[in-house]
Amino acid sequence: MPGIFWVVPISGVISVIFAVLLARNVLKRPTGTPKMKEIGDIIFQAAWAFLKRQYTTIAIYSVAIAIIIGVLVGLLGGTEVEGLSQFDIGWRTGVAFLVGAVCSGVAGFIGMYIAVKSNVRCAAAAQKSLTEAVNVALRGGAVSGFLITALSLIGVTVIFFAYGGATNPQIAPHLIVGFGFGASFVALFAQLGGGIYTKAADVGADLVGKVEQGIPEDDPRNPATIADNVGDNVGDVAGMGADLFESYVGSIIATIALATAATIFAGGAGANVPFDDARFLLPILVAAIGVFSSVLGTFLVRTGEQASMGRLLWALRTGIYSAGGLVLLGTAIAITVLNLDFKLFWVVAVGLAVGQIIGLSTEYFTSYEYRPTKALSGQALTGAGTVIIAGLGLGMLSTVIPLVAVVAGIWLADWLAGVYGIALAAVGMLSTLGITLATDAYGPVADNAGGIAEQAHLPPEVRQRTDALDALGNTTAATGKGFAIGSAVLTALALMVAYSQVAKLDVLDLLKTRVLMGLLIGAVMPFIFSSLTMQAVGRAANKIIEEVRRQFREIPGIMDGTGRPDYARAVDISTQSALREMVLPGLLAIVVPVLVGAFMGAAALGGLLLGAIATGFLLAVTMANAGGAWDNAKKYIELGNYGGKGSDPHRAAVVGDTVGDPFKDTSGPSLNILIKLMAIVSLI
Amino acid sequence: MPGIFWVVPISGVISVIFAVLLARNVLKRPTGTPKMKEIGDIIFQAAWAFLKRQYTTIAIYSVAIAIIIGVLVGLLGGTEVEGLSQFDIGWRTGVAFLVGAVCSGVAGFIGMYIAVKSNVRCAAAAQKSLTEAVNVALRGGAVSGFLITALSLIGVTVIFFAYGGATNPQIAPHLIVGFGFGASFVALFAQLGGGIYTKAADVGADLVGKVEQGIPEDDPRNPATIADNVGDNVGDVAGMGADLFESYVGSIIATIALATAATIFAGGAGANVPFDDARFLLPILVAAIGVFSSVLGTFLVRTGEQASMGRLLWALRTGIYSAGGLVLLGTAIAITVLNLDFKLFWVVAVGLAVGQIIGLSTEYFTSYEYRPTKALSGQALTGAGTVIIAGLGLGMLSTVIPLVAVVAGIWLADWLAGVYGIALAAVGMLSTLGITLATDAYGPVADNAGGIAEQAHLPPEVRQRTDALDALGNTTAATGKGFAIGSAVLTALALMVAYSQVAKLDVLDLLKTRVLMGLLIGAVMPFIFSSLTMQAVGRAANKIIEEVRRQFREIPGIMDGTGRPDYARAVDISTQSALREMVLPGLLAIVVPVLVGAFMGAAALGGLLLGAIATGFLLAVTMANAGGAWDNAKKYIELGNYGGKGSDPHRAAVVGDTVGDPFKDTSGPSLNILIKLMAIVSLI
Repeated sequence: MPGIFWVVPISGVISVIFAVLLARNVLKRPTGTPKMKEIGDIIFQAAWAFLKRQYTTIAIYSVAIAIIIGVLVGLLGGTEVEGLSQFDIGWRTGVAFLVGAVCSGVAGFIGMYIAVKSNVRCAAAAQKSLTEAVNVALRGGAVSGFLITALSLIGVTVIFFAYGGATNPQIAPHLIVGFGFGASFVALFAQLGGGIYTKAADVGADLVGKVEQGIPEDDPRNPATIADNVGDNVGDVAGMGADLFESYVGSIIATIALATAATIFAGGAGANVPFDDARFLLPILVAAIGVFSSVLGTFLVRTGEQASMGRLLWALRTGIYSAGGLVLLGTAIAITVLNLDFKLFWVVAVGLAVGQIIGLSTEYFTSYEYRPTKALSGQALTGAGTVIIAGLGLGMLSTVIPLVAVVAGIWLADWLAGVYGIALAAVGMLSTLGITLATDAYGPVADNAGGIAEQAHLPPEVRQRTDALDALGNTTAATGKGFAIGSAVLTALALMVAYSQVAKLDVLDLLKTRVLMGLLIGAVMPFIFSSLTMQAVGRAANKIIEEVRRQFREIPGIMDGTGRPDYARAVDISTQSALREMVLPGLLAIVVPVLVGAFMGAAALGGLLLGAIATGFLLAVTMANAGGAWDNAKKYIELGNYGGKGSDPHRAAVVGDTVGDPFKDTSGPSLNILIKLMAIVSLI
Repeated sequence: MPGIFWVVPISGVISVIFAVLLARNVLKRPTGTPKMKEIGDIIFQAAWAFLKRQYTTIAIYSVAIAIIIGVLVGLLGGTEVEGLSQFDIGWRTGVAFLVGAVCSGVAGFIGMYIAVKSNVRCAAAAQKSLTEAVNVALRGGAVSGFLITALSLIGVTVIFFAYGGATNPQIAPHLIVGFGFGASFVALFAQLGGGIYTKAADVGADLVGKVEQGIPEDDPRNPATIADNVGDNVGDVAGMGADLFESYVGSIIATIALATAATIFAGGAGANVPFDDARFLLPILVAAIGVFSSVLGTFLVRTGEQASMGRLLWALRTGIYSAGGLVLLGTAIAITVLNLDFKLFWVVAVGLAVGQIIGLSTEYFTSYEYRPTKALSGQALTGAGTVIIAGLGLGMLSTVIPLVAVVAGIWLADWLAGVYGIALAAVGMLSTLGITLATDAYGPVADNAGGIAEQAHLPPEVRQRTDALDALGNTTAATGKGFAIGSAVLTALALMVAYSQVAKLDVLDLLKTRVLMGLLIGAVMPFIFSSLTMQAVGRAANKIIEEVRRQFREIPGIMDGTGRPDYARAVDISTQSALREMVLPGLLAIVVPVLVGAFMGAAALGGLLLGAIATGFLLAVTMANAGGAWDNAKKYIELGNYGGKGSDPHRAAVVGDTVGDPFKDTSGPSLNILIKLMAIVSLI
């Protein structure tokens, strides 16, 4: 074991320590006026109800699945691995699954906990200054980012070494099955359930509260308002975190699995890269360097006292770019110390660059600072129809740059270092995940802080500050989504290649009918999945509407403020119906690859995966960017353009935003999980 | 040459004779009141302006392209063919291109001419009875159907034999390049230009006329109303006709090209089908039998005097199913006479079945007789946003049955007769095209007859009759679109396989980076294409709005009826801007495959084609069915459900219809051309 490998545990521990310190720092901050504290407590109580039910369900399912996997792998198991019996592989896979599930669950749970606690403290800080508020929101978000990356790093490393991966690297594919599937499984629940939850609560709260009862948004008399507040955290903190955790773990293990790969993808210079044991360690090392760099980068985010929105964005960018620079520096050192081909450095650089290009493209297409979203706002002048058409057109067109970036990245990485390079590029892209997640999770904290400021009737300058934070949060959230999609595609491709190794596929010939059929079936999966999730939002919203109506009817004094609505019950019902609604799409993601693999063979399954990756990628980008652009086009009009708030164009833009909500917060992001989960299921 | 082959020229000639007889029958019918005659003349004048400009442009481009292709193939040419010099192949390819272009153009031109002439005669017939009106509309439409199938049959046969295809079948791929590309080229103009034209005119007429000037729809004072009327014919008669002409020709030639194919797709029983010269003739024969059966089928469409809508639909169905049955009977005889493997009969049956399944699925998802569209109407109660979300969800879900039908069809056809079977199944599916097109082209005739009845202030019972015709037309149009998409996919796959033969691709290995990159680039093409065409509609509509405003401003007395608007100029501007707007998407379809082929090689190009076929298929079905469902959901509300015309839900449903218009009439259908054109360009 080279000495430099100590970087891994040290980074992991440092990251956890900083997460704990940040959490303590946030928790000891003031919670503002008594009214604010009350609202904060209500949100916390509601979030608790959600977390309890969600993670109870997940825990039960996880244990069951772990046992099933363990038994199946133990009895039917695939390839035998040197020195390990089928039985050994079986229970190890089951345990790896549980460890993956627990890591993902713990990271999501704690991240959510802190994010929710940060809401009210961020609002309180906004009473003092913008800088204070930014600090609280960013630190609250960073707890998630640091914990998720540290836990996945530690989890992967421990499993890898505990199972003898250092001496017996052929075990790696089994680790993917176990650990990766565990992480994916929780991610599916967190993202899909969370995505349905958040939009169902949003729609439910608006329809009964604003339309039927005529009370304003974020009014504490509405039982679903709190569910709506919780939903923001559920989607963007827990959901996105689990999604990226999955990508992170998947990319690292796929790289390890491919370290021995003869270059499957033919052609590039990669075929000539000499094999070296250190290639197993490199992905873990790069990840560790990334974790450490993210911690440092976060401390470089400095905002002055009179921070404008532009300066805030600049401050966040400085942090992210610094972290990227540090990763490159650290990787260069690691590669030199490990005496590896320096081409691998360029692979990591390619990965980082692809991530940044996708992020910038997302920002260009969804921010109202740029032409596309401004033009979209203009379409509101001729009505909702043209807003929708233009938004869908924008979303579809916005797929081009991410796709070209990914294609170019694959080509370069393969040319530099073969299939190993493709997986390593994914690791490079995700290396700065810690700080990316921090800026991403920051969004809902700022958003809810604004809601609390409104509900607690704080002075307008406080609301102005939280609005500035929120606008920035929209941009970082959109960028984060683009990043999540890009990394999901690279990871899924890496898993796909690892799959073809395990299945001993030498070619995947599209001229064979079965592969072609697999490709077409795979291509339709994201369409079905998107359709089902959008319809699930509708049904879950109806459940919430019923409950909210019931509470207004049965709880006396709810409208004059003397009766207190049962927030926890509204939250519980949202959770229940969200968890119920995610079963069908979730099952589909697991059952279809199993059926295709069982009845049509390994090659058809390979075609299925690539078909799903291709359309999943494109649909996810289309939906996420169309959704983001509609949201910001509405905001642009609210700034006073094209008639401003309450005008006809504003009403048209609101229709766009309504369509965009499930696009960007439910269907789009869950497609990321779909393509990765299908890849992982295939590996079984 | 087997004696049975005389069926081919006989069918072709009979079909042309019947087309001429039907055309004469329609033309000699009365044109109604003087007011109706005047309106009919105005529409004819406008259509003439359109046809002149459109086909002049197409003719110029076609000659230029024919020369370029001839020279390029002659100089750089691909595979040498026994007994023919490069120079010979060059000029023959160029001439084949021109013949293909002329056949497609002539069929579209005459079909349009008769369809437009039928409009006013159909309105006049509706004064008498529903049966009379049905007869006129159906005969007007049948002229298109018969001419298109007869011309393609004759064209393909003449080119095939004139170039020595009977003795030297290796020439066939070159015929695809020439004849097929010629047909595709005209189809691209007709469908894309027509699609942009019709929706731009629609939006332009509505915005200035209804919104700004406050005059009703179909009012003759609006200069763009006529362009709108012409547009219906342009899209559904000329556009759809050219699209299906292309599929028809492509599937026949691909089958001929694959008659010698060693089974490229592995696995099925097809590998054991013995080769036989008669396999060259079979696709032409099946098509000829189909042409003949369609003529007979059309005469079986009988409507009683008191025809209800259900009985009308039933009458049309009887015609289509009878034609299908006759095709099966004829094919069985042909296969027996030619002494071919009877498995090929089942292949033709599979093709017919797939077409019918896709048609029925389309009807289920888009007709308000069934649950999906009824449920979509219900979503209008909660506003435009939920209508859009539900419609997109419906469209995405509706891809499943067509995809499964196509996948099952590919599997069965391959199992029965290898790749040859896949191409032959496409021929079988398209065999009854004559009658399908007749029922499809019938829609716009009935639609415009209704418009004329409105404008000429005919009594309400006349309008009721044309409304019944129109509602039926919507269903047949939607079914026709589904059919067009399904056949486009099968044809594109057949062309793709033919391509892999010409390019001597033995495998198309998705594990090779280049193939994967090609696949991803191909997959994004339909997204870009849809985005560009939707935006093109917006820009073209703006041009028309400007012109209509100018006419209202500059022509005196236009509003009180003393000044006559310059319809031809509005039409000409619509045509000009539509033709201009289609250049960029059209170029893309031609340039991208050329670039990928040139710089990334034949395998990448193969990946590109399959990627484009997969996403193009899915997007086309999603867009066509969402569009159809929105249209009919609006109509369902207009029948008095959920508040009826003018209510809030109706306004919400109108937004859905506005979004659906470019979906179903511009972007969706032109994706069919995109995937076929890319496949044909690849063959060069």
